[in-house]
Amino acid sequence: MNNNHLINFASDNSAPVAPEIMAALAAVNQGPALGYGNDAVTASFEIRLKEIFECDLRAFPVATGTAANVLGLSVLVPPYGSIYAHRLGHIEIDECGAPEFYTGGAKITLQDGKNGKLDAKELDKVLSQSGAGNVHHVQPAAVSLTQTTECGTVYTADEVFAISETAKAHGLGVHMDGARFANAVVSLGCAPADTTVKAGVDVLSLGATKNGAMAVEAVVFFNKEKAQEFEFRRKRGAHLFSKMRYLSAQLDAYFTDGLWLEFARHANEMASRLATGITLSKNANLMYPVEANMVFTKVSSEAMTNLEKSNVLFYPEGPKEASTIRLVASWNTTAEEVDAVLALIG
Amino acid sequence: MNNNHLINFASDNSAPVAPEIMAALAAVNQGPALGYGNDAVTASFEIRLKEIFECDLRAFPVATGTAANVLGLSVLVPPYGSIYAHRLGHIEIDECGAPEFYTGGAKITLQDGKNGKLDAKELDKVLSQSGAGNVHHVQPAAVSLTQTTECGTVYTADEVFAISETAKAHGLGVHMDGARFANAVVSLGCAPADTTVKAGVDVLSLGATKNGAMAVEAVVFFNKEKAQEFEFRRKRGAHLFSKMRYLSAQLDAYFTDGLWLEFARHANEMASRLATGITLSKNANLMYPVEANMVFTKVSSEAMTNLEKSNVLFYPEGPKEASTIRLVASWNTTAEEVDAVLALIG
Amino acid sequence: MNNNHLINFASDNSAPVAPEIMAALAAVNQGPALGYGNDAVTASFEIRLKEIFECDLRAFPVATGTAANVLGLSVLVPPYGSIYAHRLGHIEIDECGAPEFYTGGAKITLQDGKNGKLDAKELDKVLSQSGAGNVHHVQPAAVSLTQTTECGTVYTADEVFAISETAKAHGLGVHMDGARFANAVVSLGCAPADTTVKAGVDVLSLGATKNGAMAVEAVVFFNKEKAQEFEFRRKRGAHLFSKMRYLSAQLDAYFTDGLWLEFARHANEMASRLATGITLSKNANLMYPVEANMVFTKVSSEAMTNLEKSNVLFYPEGPKEASTIRLVASWNTTAEEVDAVLALIG
Amino acid sequence: MNNNHLINFASDNSAPVAPEIMAALAAVNQGPALGYGNDAVTASFEIRLKEIFECDLRAFPVATGTAANVLGLSVLVPPYGSIYAHRLGHIEIDECGAPEFYTGGAKITLQDGKNGKLDAKELDKVLSQSGAGNVHHVQPAAVSLTQTTECGTVYTADEVFAISETAKAHGLGVHMDGARFANAVVSLGCAPADTTVKAGVDVLSLGATKNGAMAVEAVVFFNKEKAQEFEFRRKRGAHLFSKMRYLSAQLDAYFTDGLWLEFARHANEMASRLATGITLSKNANLMYPVEANMVFTKVSSEAMTNLEKSNVLFYPEGPKEASTIRLVASWNTTAEEVDAVLALIG
Repeated sequence: MNNNHLINFASDNSAPVAPEIMAALAAVNQGPALGYGNDAVTASFEIRLKEIFECDLRAFPVATGTAANVLGLSVLVPPYGSIYAHRLGHIEIDECGAPEFYTGGAKITLQDGKNGKLDAKELDKVLSQSGAGNVHHVQPAAVSLTQTTECGTVYTADEVFAISETAKAHGLGVHMDGARFANAVVSLGCAPADTTVKAGVDVLSLGATKNGAMAVEAVVFFNKEKAQEFEFRRKRGAHLFSKMRYLSAQLDAYFTDGLWLEFARHANEMASRLATGITLSKNANLMYPVEANMVFTKVSSEAMTNLEKSNVLFYPEGPKEASTIRLVASWNTTAEEVDAVLALIG
Repeated sequence: MNNNHLINFASDNSAPVAPEIMAALAAVNQGPALGYGNDAVTASFEIRLKEIFECDLRAFPVATGTAANVLGLSVLVPPYGSIYAHRLGHIEIDECGAPEFYTGGAKITLQDGKNGKLDAKELDKVLSQSGAGNVHHVQPAAVSLTQTTECGTVYTADEVFAISETAKAHGLGVHMDGARFANAVVSLGCAPADTTVKAGVDVLSLGATKNGAMAVEAVVFFNKEKAQEFEFRRKRGAHLFSKMRYLSAQLDAYFTDGLWLEFARHANEMASRLATGITLSKNANLMYPVEANMVFTKVSSEAMTNLEKSNVLFYPEGPKEASTIRLVASWNTTAEEVDAVLALIG
Repeated sequence: MNNNHLINFASDNSAPVAPEIMAALAAVNQGPALGYGNDAVTASFEIRLKEIFECDLRAFPVATGTAANVLGLSVLVPPYGSIYAHRLGHIEIDECGAPEFYTGGAKITLQDGKNGKLDAKELDKVLSQSGAGNVHHVQPAAVSLTQTTECGTVYTADEVFAISETAKAHGLGVHMDGARFANAVVSLGCAPADTTVKAGVDVLSLGATKNGAMAVEAVVFFNKEKAQEFEFRRKRGAHLFSKMRYLSAQLDAYFTDGLWLEFARHANEMASRLATGITLSKNANLMYPVEANMVFTKVSSEAMTNLEKSNVLFYPEGPKEASTIRLVASWNTTAEEVDAVLALIG
Repeated sequence: MNNNHLINFASDNSAPVAPEIMAALAAVNQGPALGYGNDAVTASFEIRLKEIFECDLRAFPVATGTAANVLGLSVLVPPYGSIYAHRLGHIEIDECGAPEFYTGGAKITLQDGKNGKLDAKELDKVLSQSGAGNVHHVQPAAVSLTQTTECGTVYTADEVFAISETAKAHGLGVHMDGARFANAVVSLGCAPADTTVKAGVDVLSLGATKNGAMAVEAVVFFNKEKAQEFEFRRKRGAHLFSKMRYLSAQLDAYFTDGLWLEFARHANEMASRLATGITLSKNANLMYPVEANMVFTKVSSEAMTNLEKSNVLFYPEGPKEASTIRLVASWNTTAEEVDAVLALIG
């Protein structure tokens, strides 16, 4: 079961768990602890988040990114509601209908937008014609935006703010899918609050699994009122862990001494190194600006063949014959691994 | 965060993770692995279960007992269906409506029964008057029984078989909530298959979390046809882990060399020691036969006061003034801890 | 298709439509009218209800009693909520899980109670132990009581008030299933407001179908705030009629000049005549006090045979061998029909 | 309440009920009848449909078009499924999320297509990339096409067949929203079976409300196996009428002696007359081919003003300033009314 000979660019969730997280799990594994979050480390991680986001908040651990997204959305969106999201959004493409399930049947209304980003002006136009108040139509209830986007780009704080402002002007809540939020914060060089609570986000899915943790995300409510029913929804979604301390310990370590940003910075740097190499190569082109830890590239068919025959793990984007691929850098990606991929591309 | 001075009889899920499980997590944490179950250890644990249950089957890891129960039930029960379960069942009392959520609104039809057990004859009578086929009534779809029961008793293989036979005669599927299945197997001294696949069970929630694991249960389908839609339901329930290997590794270790039965045997023995002491005490009485790792006892008010002032963790059953409590032994409960509790009871 | 030779005691919904209602349908069938309730007669019937209930309110026509019940409940009860209702309640027994469907998976918590009535003191006791606020349990959200009850008895205004007071003390909303509300009002000789808005009811399913209409009920919101989301839920439940005027015209006629009470008074009188006869017969006993238009009686096996061979339509209650039957009087039941049944009983 | 001075082109559901339907309601209103469809006229109308569609089938009355659509779809589509439909489809735009509600959270995957029609080749391409079998994605489950389309165009039998063939090749069921099915049959001059059962349709929502009835549609299952669970879903959707005979009588009359086709033929002819006039006018242009009873036209701003000030009821399509409107002819539209509209357009 030793896969160390493989080079992982398939996904940041194919990477192993960081030693600091493993150590935290070992450290919390002492004696008994009351279940379901009534333990010391669950309290501790929430305090860390209050410091990091410079505000009062409620934060709850769940084990998957989809759970974080859909439980967060379920408190913003009634069954007869609609979620405005990008056509490429994880909630639309990759969650097998979980948002529809958890909201009791709400709709996702798909938006286009360059580089995987929603556009505030376009959103305003669409919401103005959305049929709000008309009983025949689902009712606009939330905007969900992804930070880092599915294209590996990053919203600026101003862009998030413009979207939130538009959403609120039309009475919608704002959810951020932050599965790769750490990568965005590092990319922007801003405070975590700048692109979230200060930019109008109500609920944040704050990822850790893709950035060195084993399996944990925090659902963060900046609007604490909205958090009230969350706990019932989490339990009935079967996402309340009895041995909660093992989720919380991961988050507690992750948010200690900037570990989360350190990992993200490294992954971003590796992606940047990869992007630079691709820019210089005549066998590959970047499909989107590389602003975080993901690189989308169209490679020559020769390069594609080289990669396919190699020990590099990666996923094609779209049909195979298009030779477009996604390469994701992780907390433990090495410069040697990046260079090995670049050598294969040529 | 060292709670070693506390004596845990609150729940087996308040116990820490066993060292063998922690070691398995460390061992699997090598290099990359494809996500979502496409890894070697996920394949391995399923093979172990085929050997243990002496039959072909499908088995899927999920992280909570509630998830195992309700995802299993969701493939047996249509939205207009009904689940027949004991009034004390975990699915009725302690899952905040998760079965209703995952089935799309099915009903739980509650049954009485001595010592937490359903009775086949009574079930037959109730099902005969259930309005099956009548469009005004929800349609009986599944029986769910708990092994070890919520009262700490254990169904014999014959009892399970009689219930399954009744269920199948009326066209219902059979689900077993086996959060403490290991304790029941040890208690019965039977093969795991005897009280499940050979006794007519279709879907088993096979617990590990309460018996030394960190957070994992297996949903086992003896009726493989019923497994087909499970994977879609798991994903859309947000219970498909990207880093699945860390769930599967727990199960793989748990089911290796009889570790699961060893832990359960120990917990049962500690409960038995406790029960023996209570039987001898004039300050306490057993409420149910002690057949696994749970002891329900009514204690004198003096004993209650002693326990409350002590370092023993436990939960009252029912109103406090009744002085009825639940004491649960775990994989790591020591004879000294049992004796300390008995000393407090007097 | 002339069934005039049959004597209907099967149900008040087996009776034909009253001529006044048919006339109203003919009268409204003139020229075009905008759909979905934007017509004059829909506005008119709501005004009539404001007068009848002596208060401001919102009222919406739907076509079935189940729709009225479950749409009304859906705005009171969250998916993780629980509805407290009598074990014999229509919402539990006869709606094939519609309440669970429309609430998104809430639970119905069943209560016992003499003569089909909930008891305020018992309810208070149960609610005190309901686990409100505990994340493991569904959250008490509404009480639903049936007026006239499923046993043909009627809550006094004081009884309704006591239940509402208890419900509100625990933070629950109050729903009344008034499929036979007119019969109760006549029976009590009170104002319609006395046993509803003045007694703490939030939402009333106000029946007409069983009392001479073709197919229409009003969902009445005394708590207008709760009405806000009703319209979206009605539409998405597929219960918003395009040609709404034909629902509203029935209600408008029904509530004009006391027609609804006149029909109910007649039906009650016929049931009373039947009950008197049964009391005098040595071949039959009443099972419940006869306070409205339903008579539950246990008859001798000879009487049962006579009835079965006759042209009287009726339903057995429970297993056939018990010889317990339900006889329902309608707006068009005649004294001769009552006497014919009594003659058959002997 | 006499609106005879208004000229209705707003919708065919703003028209009154045809005298033949009113007469049928009066005729069925004789004596008692057992409820919930256990009556003679409900049996009768189903027999008529077997004759009309030249095959065995099951047919069920419901009261709204949305109910027909979503109940029909609910038996084809699992909660983790997806419905392929045109972007302009009524199920997407005008049902406030009812399809999502009744399917338990399925998704509608929107397709473009000229003149409101799905295109079989495009559908095949999309389905080939749909992620069928991939657990991360919702699973393609049904195609829903509208006949007459929302643009007033009509699929040929060949076009329906091509779509069905494509759907079935990918394992999907086929639903037809036939709110204006009669208009399509008349337009095609084909047998009703040609564009449905013979063209691969599994479930048909067969409308009557928009074509002279009061409030009734038939859900027709050509695939009888799929009908099995329908009855439970109808009841729990609160769409099972106790006094069913009044729904069935409408359908029975509607399908007698070609009444349904006679009404549709008239409406189509009036729309055709209108279209011809518009084609000749220099103040208006047709937006789509006029193949049934709906005319979409862009008019001059002067014509728009004339229409707005007149006694003609109509709806704008899109923003008012675009001067695009929908004009719908009904069973009772007169040539004089058409000519009056044409005169206003000029």
